[in-house]
Amino acid sequence: MKITTDRISEFNKSNHSSYKTELDFLKNKLVKKGIDTEEIISKVADFQVAIPSWALGAGGTRFGRFSYGGEPASLEQKLDDIGVLHALTQSAGAVSLHIPWDIPKDVKAIKEKAQSHGIVFDAMNSNTFQDQPEAKETYKYGSLSAVNDAPRDYAIGHNLEVIKIGEELGSKSLTVWLADGANFPGQNNFQRVLQNTENSLKSIYGKMPKDWKMFIEYKPYEPNFYSTVIQDWGTSFMLANACGERAYTLVDLGHHLPNTNIEQIVATLMLKGKLGGFHFNDSKYGDDDITVGSIKPYSLFLIFNELVYGMENNPQNPDLAWMIDASHNTKDPLEDLLQSLEAILIAYTQALLVDQKALKQAQQENDVVTCQEILQDAYRTDVRPLLKAAREKSGAAINPLSAYRNLEVRKYLVKERGTKSKATGL
Amino acid sequence: MKITTDRISEFNKSNHSSYKTELDFLKNKLVKKGIDTEEIISKVADFQVAIPSWALGAGGTRFGRFSYGGEPASLEQKLDDIGVLHALTQSAGAVSLHIPWDIPKDVKAIKEKAQSHGIVFDAMNSNTFQDQPEAKETYKYGSLSAVNDAPRDYAIGHNLEVIKIGEELGSKSLTVWLADGANFPGQNNFQRVLQNTENSLKSIYGKMPKDWKMFIEYKPYEPNFYSTVIQDWGTSFMLANACGERAYTLVDLGHHLPNTNIEQIVATLMLKGKLGGFHFNDSKYGDDDITVGSIKPYSLFLIFNELVYGMENNPQNPDLAWMIDASHNTKDPLEDLLQSLEAILIAYTQALLVDQKALKQAQQENDVVTCQEILQDAYRTDVRPLLKAAREKSGAAINPLSAYRNLEVRKYLVKERGTKSKATGL
Amino acid sequence: MKITTDRISEFNKSNHSSYKTELDFLKNKLVKKGIDTEEIISKVADFQVAIPSWALGAGGTRFGRFSYGGEPASLEQKLDDIGVLHALTQSAGAVSLHIPWDIPKDVKAIKEKAQSHGIVFDAMNSNTFQDQPEAKETYKYGSLSAVNDAPRDYAIGHNLEVIKIGEELGSKSLTVWLADGANFPGQNNFQRVLQNTENSLKSIYGKMPKDWKMFIEYKPYEPNFYSTVIQDWGTSFMLANACGERAYTLVDLGHHLPNTNIEQIVATLMLKGKLGGFHFNDSKYGDDDITVGSIKPYSLFLIFNELVYGMENNPQNPDLAWMIDASHNTKDPLEDLLQSLEAILIAYTQALLVDQKALKQAQQENDVVTCQEILQDAYRTDVRPLLKAAREKSGAAINPLSAYRNLEVRKYLVKERGTKSKATGL
Amino acid sequence: MKITTDRISEFNKSNHSSYKTELDFLKNKLVKKGIDTEEIISKVADFQVAIPSWALGAGGTRFGRFSYGGEPASLEQKLDDIGVLHALTQSAGAVSLHIPWDIPKDVKAIKEKAQSHGIVFDAMNSNTFQDQPEAKETYKYGSLSAVNDAPRDYAIGHNLEVIKIGEELGSKSLTVWLADGANFPGQNNFQRVLQNTENSLKSIYGKMPKDWKMFIEYKPYEPNFYSTVIQDWGTSFMLANACGERAYTLVDLGHHLPNTNIEQIVATLMLKGKLGGFHFNDSKYGDDDITVGSIKPYSLFLIFNELVYGMENNPQNPDLAWMIDASHNTKDPLEDLLQSLEAILIAYTQALLVDQKALKQAQQENDVVTCQEILQDAYRTDVRPLLKAAREKSGAAINPLSAYRNLEVRKYLVKERGTKSKATGL
Repeated sequence: MKITTDRISEFNKSNHSSYKTELDFLKNKLVKKGIDTEEIISKVADFQVAIPSWALGAGGTRFGRFSYGGEPASLEQKLDDIGVLHALTQSAGAVSLHIPWDIPKDVKAIKEKAQSHGIVFDAMNSNTFQDQPEAKETYKYGSLSAVNDAPRDYAIGHNLEVIKIGEELGSKSLTVWLADGANFPGQNNFQRVLQNTENSLKSIYGKMPKDWKMFIEYKPYEPNFYSTVIQDWGTSFMLANACGERAYTLVDLGHHLPNTNIEQIVATLMLKGKLGGFHFNDSKYGDDDITVGSIKPYSLFLIFNELVYGMENNPQNPDLAWMIDASHNTKDPLEDLLQSLEAILIAYTQALLVDQKALKQAQQENDVVTCQEILQDAYRTDVRPLLKAAREKSGAAINPLSAYRNLEVRKYLVKERGTKSKATGL
Repeated sequence: MKITTDRISEFNKSNHSSYKTELDFLKNKLVKKGIDTEEIISKVADFQVAIPSWALGAGGTRFGRFSYGGEPASLEQKLDDIGVLHALTQSAGAVSLHIPWDIPKDVKAIKEKAQSHGIVFDAMNSNTFQDQPEAKETYKYGSLSAVNDAPRDYAIGHNLEVIKIGEELGSKSLTVWLADGANFPGQNNFQRVLQNTENSLKSIYGKMPKDWKMFIEYKPYEPNFYSTVIQDWGTSFMLANACGERAYTLVDLGHHLPNTNIEQIVATLMLKGKLGGFHFNDSKYGDDDITVGSIKPYSLFLIFNELVYGMENNPQNPDLAWMIDASHNTKDPLEDLLQSLEAILIAYTQALLVDQKALKQAQQENDVVTCQEILQDAYRTDVRPLLKAAREKSGAAINPLSAYRNLEVRKYLVKERGTKSKATGL
Repeated sequence: MKITTDRISEFNKSNHSSYKTELDFLKNKLVKKGIDTEEIISKVADFQVAIPSWALGAGGTRFGRFSYGGEPASLEQKLDDIGVLHALTQSAGAVSLHIPWDIPKDVKAIKEKAQSHGIVFDAMNSNTFQDQPEAKETYKYGSLSAVNDAPRDYAIGHNLEVIKIGEELGSKSLTVWLADGANFPGQNNFQRVLQNTENSLKSIYGKMPKDWKMFIEYKPYEPNFYSTVIQDWGTSFMLANACGERAYTLVDLGHHLPNTNIEQIVATLMLKGKLGGFHFNDSKYGDDDITVGSIKPYSLFLIFNELVYGMENNPQNPDLAWMIDASHNTKDPLEDLLQSLEAILIAYTQALLVDQKALKQAQQENDVVTCQEILQDAYRTDVRPLLKAAREKSGAAINPLSAYRNLEVRKYLVKERGTKSKATGL
Repeated sequence: MKITTDRISEFNKSNHSSYKTELDFLKNKLVKKGIDTEEIISKVADFQVAIPSWALGAGGTRFGRFSYGGEPASLEQKLDDIGVLHALTQSAGAVSLHIPWDIPKDVKAIKEKAQSHGIVFDAMNSNTFQDQPEAKETYKYGSLSAVNDAPRDYAIGHNLEVIKIGEELGSKSLTVWLADGANFPGQNNFQRVLQNTENSLKSIYGKMPKDWKMFIEYKPYEPNFYSTVIQDWGTSFMLANACGERAYTLVDLGHHLPNTNIEQIVATLMLKGKLGGFHFNDSKYGDDDITVGSIKPYSLFLIFNELVYGMENNPQNPDLAWMIDASHNTKDPLEDLLQSLEAILIAYTQALLVDQKALKQAQQENDVVTCQEILQDAYRTDVRPLLKAAREKSGAAINPLSAYRNLEVRKYLVKERGTKSKATGL
């Protein structure tokens, strides 16, 4: 299925006549505050978030999975699904592949398919947390951190292979999420597995093409329930420093202990030029991987406030690799992703409204009440008209979810692929 | 595989000549404190913990599963595995079945098999958190709590069927773990789903045989990540009261928010005569379901301290249904269960050592330092000789894990069942 | 200091000419959705939140306190401060007193003072977590739960005295926050202290005037760090049921373990007709007692969504006793309270916008995506013009914080009371 | 009050005749496992833990404080109290002073007093989280991190003064616990305050004597409830690296988010040669500061397991500065400290029993079950006879708590100092 610009344009015309009035009203109000609304609209229109190839089907938990009709059964179909998202939003113009789930059989064809949807290949993801049927070594007791050489070398080799595939596709970065750890006290010698991990990462880093970047994720627990080798940003940061200047920390919003101040971590990493990638999702308990902004939208705004500040003030960081990393256990996966994209862009827009100059002054004067007022004023503003304007400007649907339903995309996908197709992934 | 009493007795003789000296030494020491060690040994020897049929193979997480050789592929083989545990420990003389995973094809044969191992049928478990291949209704949006009548009635019907199977086998209780809940704010009307749940439970309760008990579990999250209908003991307690006097709350150690004082919940439920069952496991982060006592053994002791107190002082409670509810993602499942049984019995023995009379007096005098000393003195005692004595008394292996390895049980099971057999369950 | 209606009206005129356009625009938009904006404005204008007498000065932590100039040094001055808040907002028309900090010397004068500000006396608060200089018994080891009769009777007597003072002032309810608990395992016999607490509360309840209500708070920890006698809503609910139909649970937003789903607790209590009072504040870690809505505004909205639903559908509950229970460690206490009032009314207004009918239908159809859209649409709406309209309608300042600063209230208070005055309280 | 060696020796003789038998029995058992018990006894006898000068009186919470009779009212009396602890245990031979609470008036006299008790001066602690009555600048909005130069310079100056006092007394290290942070989003610019902190610490470090070390604490929250400038080990580690090789991270057990794997942090810091100091306490919820080992003794053991491993394998670290940092809200402060010392030494002894060689082999073979057995075998051993032997060897009381009560120390202190004396501190 491919959604043409014409259909979107047509849909926009027939359904959103009234939003212009709202937009004008809001612009008028913001201009009085000295805000350049056109610049904000441009920035929002330019914002691109990668979609991971493994999150286009129904997700599940260890207790089971309720599948969804019309799931993409091949890499081509996954690209088509992202194509739908991108056509509707013009902000999902990248895919993040997961190897071995997405090894392209015909690289050229895949690249053409992606290009036809306007999709580029973002960071490549390796997988050393599962054994593949044909695997020669097991990762049961660790991969890049393993005490035994064989699985460690095997895991290093796998990462190098992922890079190779990425090179063919035009990707420029590797994301390493290392699930290694222990389920029980005593299982691991903490020092040994950390040292092994550092050595393994350096070995991969040393063989990466010179224009590639490495993103190192961290996570406190799951799938290991006593310890994880890269348990927090401090460990990731230390490892990235050990590897070299093109190694960075990647922040996944769900990978923190209860009550962590994530925005402060973001600020620290940006100050030090070591923030490389960002995985969006939301959660109430652990790594719940639910729709972005569905639980803690203010926290998302505060994080974007730091990101916007960093993007303006810390040129030492690379362009960030943004990605949605969520699991769709309940909703239509594409609708879920549309809601996530909406939440991300709303938070970004709100953060762009923050009066940084006034904030700095209030901070300097220790006027804490005004500091809070400035942030809340931006957050409480209904920025949806600006987002709609950004969408219209870039040729996207003004209301993507409504367009998706109106165009009966899921019905079409089910018709095409059946109700039993199953996407590879989690 | 069946382990005879003779082999165990022989193994005990050849391997544990020295423990008697330790036992005598400890007894001598405890007797001086006025402790009746024989009574403790008897109580420990009598303690029986049920093994769930779904936890005899390798467990997994949503990220995958590393299987273990020789997993039991049928209900018969599951009973054989429990038979091994029971022969080795004489404290695993019950099985808790999970329907539909364990529907017996030949009830009589299954009963005989169980009897041959000295195993009785403890609480039956229903499953309304997964859709079975042949299911006529989906539990995706709820079962006993569902807004639509069809899945709700279907779930009620399933529970009644579970009871029926249990009756045939000689079970006397039903455990309801209701995974129902919501992944997103707004998905559920809290009041409506709670009311539906109360009605459904009452309906099942009303049709239970008069000598049956119902155990209602609670859990704050997972597999739902925003809300769970029965989120805490308070909700379970309220529902149990609504159902009637043979409905009780079941405590699973892993089903609590961070930092919950579980022992206080246990004490409250026992005071009110509403504690019915108990699921053992351990955890550091969430419902990690790892080996009992592997993370927080002192907490386990404090919980046993309340259980021992309640068993002595609160006759209003039924005999508790004890069960290990753990997942074996890393270790040999049977070895994992042996370590869990060991930890449970150690904590129980330690709790039996607590000088309740002195404790009461210290509490009365607000001598907080002495209160702590009394508990810690019991906990710091190395009670393993008492446990060994209890094992010998009941005909079990003095050191079950060592016997298990010495008898090469796993090697035998792999030989018999192969490396690819897979147990039904989680 | 007293702020006259004239000054406010004058201030409104000169500063908020533009808000009418915004209001009209918003009303116009909402009316199209079938929303009765006038009714919403009326409800918001009517909403009254009590101010606790102990939170008008600077708060502190165990590490110290940074005092604020112009703190009220007497009950009269506290009422004056609330008078300022009420004049500015017309939504703070009640005070909640804390005994023994606020024993009125001249009841008649105090009542007249309150009346002159339009302030009524809401729930009375007893204090059994501190020893007063003249105390005959110590609460160090417990009060209503104490193992010894003397402190228990003393604590009961204190609560009765609080009721007596409340009667004279016109209050109609007693809030019991029981800090009793233990710092160490073994210190308390859980069953005994729970039973003692039940007996003590019943004894107080039995002597309360027939038109009084009792509100029972719960809290998991602090100031005790191992256990708290009334640790959760389940315990409070159980005790309220034991006391009688005029005993209710009181929810304080900060009194929960990490990640608790508070809105579900609210819904459960309202369904059962047992929600009596509500303490507002916000927190990131524990009972941080910071400005309402400063950390988790969406969570506050979700809670209000349940409150609004319950107020419409559960007539079995009494009119709720709303109160702000925060500590002002950093900001000007009155500005802090103004920001809290603003956040409360914004959340309330947003909750009133939720299309309950559409939500019910989406829930019935398991259209989870639409459920979320409905809640988020209400939440993302900038409702501040409606709140301004409600304020103007009731004669309050359209922007209370701006008016407070413009009128230089703090400057005046410092001038009047000095920089060293210190409010009794926490 | 001073407890002579004679009295202790006499007390030991009359009360502990039976422990020798226990010791011999245990030694005999351990020797069979190839354990050098004399070496363990020596190590335990040598272990010294500093007592902080601010924790010899009753502690409190923001809700109040219940004072204890006989609290030390001067630095001299504090040293006397530590003298009592040291005489009884021979393991509390150091004091950690807190400035400005403990500025010595007569340095020579204080040094002589300390020497007479066998007490040395461990790390000095600065205080920039409170304003002193005579303070020229306020730390309300930050100290070493402050946006304004004046309080920042003032805080730097204070730290330099603390160093100066420490030099006179013979201390060789400075501990910086920086409470700086924010109560509200927006209050701080994260990057600015972090940069300020780095600059301030470097400035202090640059002026420290060349044989001094700096220990940098971290803490996620309290007394600030939104953010703390040095929120975690990663931030502390980064700052220590920025300062230089004599700057280290200090771990306080209570300064972590829920469920943090602290032992892994310890291992990481030791691997990198950056662990400098250690504050002992225990907690269930937050920084509860209760008696060491009273809540999570197994966790304490696991931490000691890493410390023992690091002390043997990581010579790059300095000798660690051990200290008890607890608050005594309920118990007699000296009894509380005796229980903490007991728990520390038990955990240390247990950790020394771990068979590191067998553990390494089991890890190498991925025999997770045996790894756990090895740790638990050490932990389950009742090591108290070894600890008693270490005490006797060093001339301490075999059972310090019992000796303390028998000698009626508190009665004596109350007689000497009265019931109203109040120790400076928290």
